[in-house]
Amino acid sequence: MAGMIVIYKQPADVKAFDKHYFETHIPLAKKIPGLRKYEISHGPITTVAGPSDVYLIGTLHFDDLDAMKKGMASPEGQAAGADRRLYAPDESGVQMFLFETREV
Amino acid sequence: MAGMIVIYKQPADVKAFDKHYFETHIPLAKKIPGLRKYEISHGPITTVAGPSDVYLIGTLHFDDLDAMKKGMASPEGQAAGADRRLYAPDESGVQMFLFETREV
Repeated sequence: MAGMIVIYKQPADVKAFDKHYFETHIPLAKKIPGLRKYEISHGPITTVAGPSDVYLIGTLHFDDLDAMKKGMASPEGQAAGADRRLYAPDESGVQMFLFETREV
Repeated sequence: MAGMIVIYKQPADVKAFDKHYFETHIPLAKKIPGLRKYEISHGPITTVAGPSDVYLIGTLHFDDLDAMKKGMASPEGQAAGADRRLYAPDESGVQMFLFETREV
């Protein structure tokens, strides 16, 4: 499998973030060809030491990195990527990691 | 479900990191009560923009946050946490996030 983890910092306007993420982004991202599973964090995100400055973590699962790259390069993937930049611009400190996974 | 994501920065000594992680840490962490699945990244981790400074991402899955907290508070969880500080001290920039997840 392959995963794309997207880590969003606490937004200045939580209501606006939620509205955009749940009403626009999730429906767009769910159209990405090859997407197998889409998970999001639910409730507060903490660290071992206590609260974190992270508001939401989304994980998109694909069969492998090739499928992920093809999906992200598709018109639907491009649309979801462009949409992400609207509610979480690169300057917002959003982190995204793409990688193959295996169970141990 | 609940997930603990552990994001390790590129270590100074990759061989020593790998040896500790695969030979000591994984076996210790797999003993944590309530652990349902343990996934790690396999191969390079990239961002949308290109390479990242992240070396490895581990994700531990539990039934829920309560099970995760109980697992981490157990002797096995404490041992795994103490071991993590040996090969990836807090000062190494390691990030850990604990949260409930749901599928969308």
